[in-house]
Amino acid sequence: MKLGILTVLFDGKPLEEVAEYVSELGYEAVEIASWAGSGHLDTEKAISDPAYAKGIKKMLASHGLEISALSDHLSSQLVLPPNDASWDPWSPTQDKDEMVKFGREHLLQSARVASELEIPVVNGFFGSTVWGNWYSWPPKNIEIYDEGWDLFAERWNPILDEFKKLGVKFAHEVHPTEIAYNITTAQTALDKLDRDDWGFNFDPSHFIWQMIDPVVFVKTFGNRILHVHAKDFEVQEDEISRDGVLSTGSWTSMRRAARYRVPGWGQVPWKRLITALLEVGYDGTLSFEHEDPVMSEKDGAEKSIDFLRPLMIKEPMNPDADHFWLN
Amino acid sequence: MKLGILTVLFDGKPLEEVAEYVSELGYEAVEIASWAGSGHLDTEKAISDPAYAKGIKKMLASHGLEISALSDHLSSQLVLPPNDASWDPWSPTQDKDEMVKFGREHLLQSARVASELEIPVVNGFFGSTVWGNWYSWPPKNIEIYDEGWDLFAERWNPILDEFKKLGVKFAHEVHPTEIAYNITTAQTALDKLDRDDWGFNFDPSHFIWQMIDPVVFVKTFGNRILHVHAKDFEVQEDEISRDGVLSTGSWTSMRRAARYRVPGWGQVPWKRLITALLEVGYDGTLSFEHEDPVMSEKDGAEKSIDFLRPLMIKEPMNPDADHFWLN
Amino acid sequence: MKLGILTVLFDGKPLEEVAEYVSELGYEAVEIASWAGSGHLDTEKAISDPAYAKGIKKMLASHGLEISALSDHLSSQLVLPPNDASWDPWSPTQDKDEMVKFGREHLLQSARVASELEIPVVNGFFGSTVWGNWYSWPPKNIEIYDEGWDLFAERWNPILDEFKKLGVKFAHEVHPTEIAYNITTAQTALDKLDRDDWGFNFDPSHFIWQMIDPVVFVKTFGNRILHVHAKDFEVQEDEISRDGVLSTGSWTSMRRAARYRVPGWGQVPWKRLITALLEVGYDGTLSFEHEDPVMSEKDGAEKSIDFLRPLMIKEPMNPDADHFWLN
Amino acid sequence: MKLGILTVLFDGKPLEEVAEYVSELGYEAVEIASWAGSGHLDTEKAISDPAYAKGIKKMLASHGLEISALSDHLSSQLVLPPNDASWDPWSPTQDKDEMVKFGREHLLQSARVASELEIPVVNGFFGSTVWGNWYSWPPKNIEIYDEGWDLFAERWNPILDEFKKLGVKFAHEVHPTEIAYNITTAQTALDKLDRDDWGFNFDPSHFIWQMIDPVVFVKTFGNRILHVHAKDFEVQEDEISRDGVLSTGSWTSMRRAARYRVPGWGQVPWKRLITALLEVGYDGTLSFEHEDPVMSEKDGAEKSIDFLRPLMIKEPMNPDADHFWLN
Amino acid sequence: MKLGILTVLFDGKPLEEVAEYVSELGYEAVEIASWAGSGHLDTEKAISDPAYAKGIKKMLASHGLEISALSDHLSSQLVLPPNDASWDPWSPTQDKDEMVKFGREHLLQSARVASELEIPVVNGFFGSTVWGNWYSWPPKNIEIYDEGWDLFAERWNPILDEFKKLGVKFAHEVHPTEIAYNITTAQTALDKLDRDDWGFNFDPSHFIWQMIDPVVFVKTFGNRILHVHAKDFEVQEDEISRDGVLSTGSWTSMRRAARYRVPGWGQVPWKRLITALLEVGYDGTLSFEHEDPVMSEKDGAEKSIDFLRPLMIKEPMNPDADHFWLN
Amino acid sequence: MKLGILTVLFDGKPLEEVAEYVSELGYEAVEIASWAGSGHLDTEKAISDPAYAKGIKKMLASHGLEISALSDHLSSQLVLPPNDASWDPWSPTQDKDEMVKFGREHLLQSARVASELEIPVVNGFFGSTVWGNWYSWPPKNIEIYDEGWDLFAERWNPILDEFKKLGVKFAHEVHPTEIAYNITTAQTALDKLDRDDWGFNFDPSHFIWQMIDPVVFVKTFGNRILHVHAKDFEVQEDEISRDGVLSTGSWTSMRRAARYRVPGWGQVPWKRLITALLEVGYDGTLSFEHEDPVMSEKDGAEKSIDFLRPLMIKEPMNPDADHFWLN
Repeated sequence: MKLGILTVLFDGKPLEEVAEYVSELGYEAVEIASWAGSGHLDTEKAISDPAYAKGIKKMLASHGLEISALSDHLSSQLVLPPNDASWDPWSPTQDKDEMVKFGREHLLQSARVASELEIPVVNGFFGSTVWGNWYSWPPKNIEIYDEGWDLFAERWNPILDEFKKLGVKFAHEVHPTEIAYNITTAQTALDKLDRDDWGFNFDPSHFIWQMIDPVVFVKTFGNRILHVHAKDFEVQEDEISRDGVLSTGSWTSMRRAARYRVPGWGQVPWKRLITALLEVGYDGTLSFEHEDPVMSEKDGAEKSIDFLRPLMIKEPMNPDADHFWLN
Repeated sequence: MKLGILTVLFDGKPLEEVAEYVSELGYEAVEIASWAGSGHLDTEKAISDPAYAKGIKKMLASHGLEISALSDHLSSQLVLPPNDASWDPWSPTQDKDEMVKFGREHLLQSARVASELEIPVVNGFFGSTVWGNWYSWPPKNIEIYDEGWDLFAERWNPILDEFKKLGVKFAHEVHPTEIAYNITTAQTALDKLDRDDWGFNFDPSHFIWQMIDPVVFVKTFGNRILHVHAKDFEVQEDEISRDGVLSTGSWTSMRRAARYRVPGWGQVPWKRLITALLEVGYDGTLSFEHEDPVMSEKDGAEKSIDFLRPLMIKEPMNPDADHFWLN
Repeated sequence: MKLGILTVLFDGKPLEEVAEYVSELGYEAVEIASWAGSGHLDTEKAISDPAYAKGIKKMLASHGLEISALSDHLSSQLVLPPNDASWDPWSPTQDKDEMVKFGREHLLQSARVASELEIPVVNGFFGSTVWGNWYSWPPKNIEIYDEGWDLFAERWNPILDEFKKLGVKFAHEVHPTEIAYNITTAQTALDKLDRDDWGFNFDPSHFIWQMIDPVVFVKTFGNRILHVHAKDFEVQEDEISRDGVLSTGSWTSMRRAARYRVPGWGQVPWKRLITALLEVGYDGTLSFEHEDPVMSEKDGAEKSIDFLRPLMIKEPMNPDADHFWLN
Repeated sequence: MKLGILTVLFDGKPLEEVAEYVSELGYEAVEIASWAGSGHLDTEKAISDPAYAKGIKKMLASHGLEISALSDHLSSQLVLPPNDASWDPWSPTQDKDEMVKFGREHLLQSARVASELEIPVVNGFFGSTVWGNWYSWPPKNIEIYDEGWDLFAERWNPILDEFKKLGVKFAHEVHPTEIAYNITTAQTALDKLDRDDWGFNFDPSHFIWQMIDPVVFVKTFGNRILHVHAKDFEVQEDEISRDGVLSTGSWTSMRRAARYRVPGWGQVPWKRLITALLEVGYDGTLSFEHEDPVMSEKDGAEKSIDFLRPLMIKEPMNPDADHFWLN
Repeated sequence: MKLGILTVLFDGKPLEEVAEYVSELGYEAVEIASWAGSGHLDTEKAISDPAYAKGIKKMLASHGLEISALSDHLSSQLVLPPNDASWDPWSPTQDKDEMVKFGREHLLQSARVASELEIPVVNGFFGSTVWGNWYSWPPKNIEIYDEGWDLFAERWNPILDEFKKLGVKFAHEVHPTEIAYNITTAQTALDKLDRDDWGFNFDPSHFIWQMIDPVVFVKTFGNRILHVHAKDFEVQEDEISRDGVLSTGSWTSMRRAARYRVPGWGQVPWKRLITALLEVGYDGTLSFEHEDPVMSEKDGAEKSIDFLRPLMIKEPMNPDADHFWLN
Repeated sequence: MKLGILTVLFDGKPLEEVAEYVSELGYEAVEIASWAGSGHLDTEKAISDPAYAKGIKKMLASHGLEISALSDHLSSQLVLPPNDASWDPWSPTQDKDEMVKFGREHLLQSARVASELEIPVVNGFFGSTVWGNWYSWPPKNIEIYDEGWDLFAERWNPILDEFKKLGVKFAHEVHPTEIAYNITTAQTALDKLDRDDWGFNFDPSHFIWQMIDPVVFVKTFGNRILHVHAKDFEVQEDEISRDGVLSTGSWTSMRRAARYRVPGWGQVPWKRLITALLEVGYDGTLSFEHEDPVMSEKDGAEKSIDFLRPLMIKEPMNPDADHFWLN
């Protein structure tokens, strides 16, 4: 496994400056936002100007960095937009049909760039037209959620076909507000898109507050894990019995019971998790994503690698090792 | 405190048969569904035919039962309907404006019946046009949720004005899918409807899976608690680390991590809860609501009262008692 | 489900006296030891004198008791005896080959009596020639344990063939000292005896100290559970961090960390367990087995039924019930 | 074991009225306050008028009640009074020497009455001149506490000599504000008064908030336990992380984290405790003491016996029982 | 935040030698004992000889060290001395009135030195004449404790007036044996001294054994926290159920359940705590205080900074940062 | 305390190469396998050729390494072989009498080499002829286990006599499959071999899954601890409720609930443990033993020292230190 970083944390700075900084900290890979508006990668330009894209890869390589994945969360989700204005800010249009079309096409642009640069994975969100219906009451919600799955299959199969042609895989981040947000629904997604050419961008933080053991996710889905986010989650002990796990409102409130943290500052069981990733054969990148409302960008980038570096296992025990105590 | 029961559990049976059965079990009060379609109370008829309504009260009294509250959850929620089909089955119309109007008018019918029968409380739901937006991402959701609160105040203030005239109080059940679903949002509701003529129908089950201590709800809102549901909640220990607290799909699945149970079969801390209710001065009914997918209606009705009866404290310690150990 | 009792607790008293006592306490079924030396059933006599056997059944019926199962633990285990003297006291011979033969034949006698009396299940132990090798060190133990499984299949398949002919099922109690002692090895037993005509006598007590959730056993093996023991287990909180779960020596020592208890006095999660049994469709007997070293035989018999009676669910929720909150 | 009650709970009512009430509830014994001012026993009168004392015993017997112990807490403690006014209200004098003398003499009066009535135990408190010095800072406190132990031995040895002559035992209640308040200091008391003619009135409630397992007390001191109080303690989960175990101020405050409760309403592990008492051979009374600030006197008296009755083990397993599973 | 150290740990060594040692370890600040007898600061000399005081500050600055606070615990506490000999060793007199006067005057000397050296805070203890009365029994204790609060206000208001004139703040360490020893009593102190010119020297260790969450202290008192001690507390898991949280006797006993430890070796939740300090805007020093009875002075000084250094957050997330995930 | 390593981890490499590698990592001592077949020490050669043995010691010293102990587990255990083939692979004979003789003689060879090289301890196993009989059922097992203890004393006393003559101590590793496998049986071993010239090689990993607190072992046996293994144990949270603590089968299975891990990756409470070792006066080596089935040999060797180095306390607090806070 390698340690990487999602550079969107420093979206306002030139990528080269970011590259220099993170490589000096010891990061070995970067995950780059390819969504519309990213400060680090303009997919349209990348497609029209191959030299631009290759230049980015070369520049990163000169700092010892590889690209672990492109990330198109903000645009990909538009493929299944909720029936409200929540996604409007990042869509060029409020017309739902146009929005869906835009999402699909932008995601495919990302895939084309990834293919061109030999980046194996594009991370993103499936979106969901039915997120608010997850609670099984009124009873009609169960039916509505099922219809949401039908639309999901209808919209995503053709996209995955395109990905397949490009030799790139789409990795859905299992995340609240998405149709697949826990282990049960991740399994349903696999059943509904019954093909082996896609997988997950696994971010353990989203499971902690749901009381799901992220290790179970790893052991359940194994080689479907195509990319991993290193992000932590804190259920604040002194607030939870009042605020609950369905905290709402600003992430920056001190009284929010549930919030993202930098790895090591929350409740993700990192040693168990890294052990499980090793055991299912994951050999990709742990990509640090900073969404901690407490500490600064630099504190995050530095503390994360200081915390994770000592936990990286260089190689698994050789199962054929001839040790008297091993069998 | 008294032990009561929400009769909707036996909606298919005549109310008098139900009354006979539950009074023999020892229940002292009933909560009757007044929503459109209730098998136990037809509000339209009750308004046009006062003898009908009074007859019900009299019949119940003959079995030693009082009416703790009317419940109009299914109709009241239409006042703030979500932007999908989830509420269609219980609305006479799918036109949202008409639906809102229907909800408001039906609820006021319930209030009129309650007033007529001197029932102090009508339970129900506020509804929510923005439930699905509770998760604070995309960031736009925070703004959308705030707009939902504005609409909430706009729609409910006039309704509460009517209730006030009738001398009846509306009690919102803090519940997922409603705009006020935890302690934080219940507080916001109190801030937005800044008047003392409404309160809560407190059902502890909804707090357990959110990791909220229902005792904190009781101590926080004290005399705003107008009615109480006796319902339990089970987070299945053997499923939770896989399925999580946001279980979706059928309530009857054995593998659902989060589900309602009959009192005593879940994780509600009943002794602490009853103690706290006593301490804040609640002297109304604990109304058993059966939504347990495991055991039969009769098992529920019987097990609930067998479990709760020994926990009923007849009277609080007199604070002026002259005991050497009390101060 | 019914509440029953394993009468061996009062082995020194005439069965009729026992029947009178337990039926008055409210028990509805008895499980009778059929092993060699049982004071309540002599299998040889039962085979040679059908009236004797039928008389027992009739006498029990006159006290409102049915026979939930015969139990032949002490003899059946001899089919796979350990390579030491531990089983000698209950074998007529110390010659291992003779011991195996005796065990098999006595068990088949039990099966014949059960068939004659239309008792569907004979409980017992598979035995184990390799129990002491469960710990995977020295590494040779893994191989030895595997060889134990081969012998297991070789010895038990023919016995099960005989059971099949008799229309009776053998129920193995998953228990330490037996080859199948936890969920993993119970699964191996099912794989090795790959036939659907046998199952388990499920006793939750054996799982508690192993830190296994007995509910997981129920959900994993479902309809393979043919009979259930109501016995509890206590891991003494004040001794465990010193004595550990592998307590050895006399059961009567106050300082033993791990010991059997009467239902309700240990750590078996009875409500979750009974719920799960209901959910997998178990409709047989919970048969109280007293091995509590603390309280007397009568205390056990009385406390057990007083504790379990209120937990008996008379019937499951009808899945087709037409309730608005059920789906 | 028997279930009894400390009648001081109903100090304002005539003892006969109390006797009638509690015997009807099922109590089998009473513990009577013999301290100065008790409404149920006047020790001076009892000594001068033997018929008075015998009359009480006879009256109680007529209701099926025995006297498990006399209790002289309020007076006995004066033997070692703290250096402040805290004990003044129950002392006839504020002169410390006179107070000590009064305490000693009153306690011996209680002992004489107990002897006369063949009551084996007088419960009470040792008192402490150094309670406030338990915290080992400033360091001088350790020395001061040690000096307190010296005075303790000096004052109590002569009193115990008198008890010995009377054939009555003194039972100290291990309790905060007393010199022996936890297991460690109870052991010191045994070391300082190195004689076997005294013991403890064991009240499990005092150990819960100190995070001491009361079962460890039972197993440690075994036959030194002469009498037992049935009282529970609640560390309020929703207040503890703010208020802490050293709650101060009125017992009746809802926000007090630490408080006494009726058995079954707190955190005393009753089943483990009763098991341990049985195992160390205690065969006396569990005497209910009501100091619960939440529920009324009658609620306490009734709920306590309803809770404890089913936990009473009538007799221990006979260690010589000839059971195949017992060894 | 900065990392500092209370130099009293090396009281026997010249301050310059200490300064050299701790600055090499990476400490950035020192807290210096100013109580009577301190080996590192003689307040009388400092007042009469300004060059002496300024020389100390200059010498420290030459090692890159600032003075975070003066500490006058041993003398300040004399302002409210308990009614026993516990404070005699550090008082020049045993006459209580003289003792009080000495305490007040010495503390004001410390304040004058602090003012002169522009040190913003003098740490200390309020003392308590009523510590031993915290337990609310006998009931008189509640009244006595209240009287203690009156005396507290009477004695401390004039002292704080002097502090105000000097532009220095007094910081009380919430600590057992002091009148304000938990969150509840810290709040009472704020109510009784209802002025904003004083605050707390917050030492999280004192809360752990009381089962108080030190994070709650931080969020409750926010900007009243003027200085922070970095000290840890261990409730020994293997001793607590026997010895309890009210451990008495020598700190060096291996069997003491409750004891101070070096940061990282106890149960203070350091990451949550540092997060909360950051959130309430604390930007002062975490001053390591060594009272660990297990490890040497140097082990403590080195392990503390090695443990805390990686937990220091350099700057908070800018609340105005323009991140798509922050709101 | 020193950090050492059991070199058998790199048995296939020349000891000098291993010495160079581990001394560079910072290890200060090595524990060398002396059992038959060890790649790092041939005891026969060492006895016949003193220069060989001394050469090893000298070579290690040249890398700054001392020898903390010889380890003869594989051979010593043959002194009490189980009645099956489990030990055959490491015995030159399957004849049990010859096997016992071989085990004893090889162990004494190890002792002679240790004596020659002034290594104070030879680690090993006592073995057990009765391991499989630890479970106290059938009841005969209790008697059989007792007989095992008799044989134990008979075989080991003469061996310890030889050790005594050589001035070397035998250290038994308390371990499952051995007659002394937990605290209770370790105590029995001390009672049966009632002499002070032997002790334990304490490996905390073996206690974790038994739910024994290894700190209790340290405090119970104090100076009987002659050597310590640094090995961790993981009870996999996501597997335990299914697989239990009596996991069987291959150590390399991802689904095994109970397994060895590198220090820091399991549940051994290292800080508490090192504190306790310091407190009982242990000043020897923590010898890292790698039996982790997950990570490679080098990962283990490196991660172990990186984890343990910061936990090493250089010296205890001097109990005579003159600190005002220490007493």
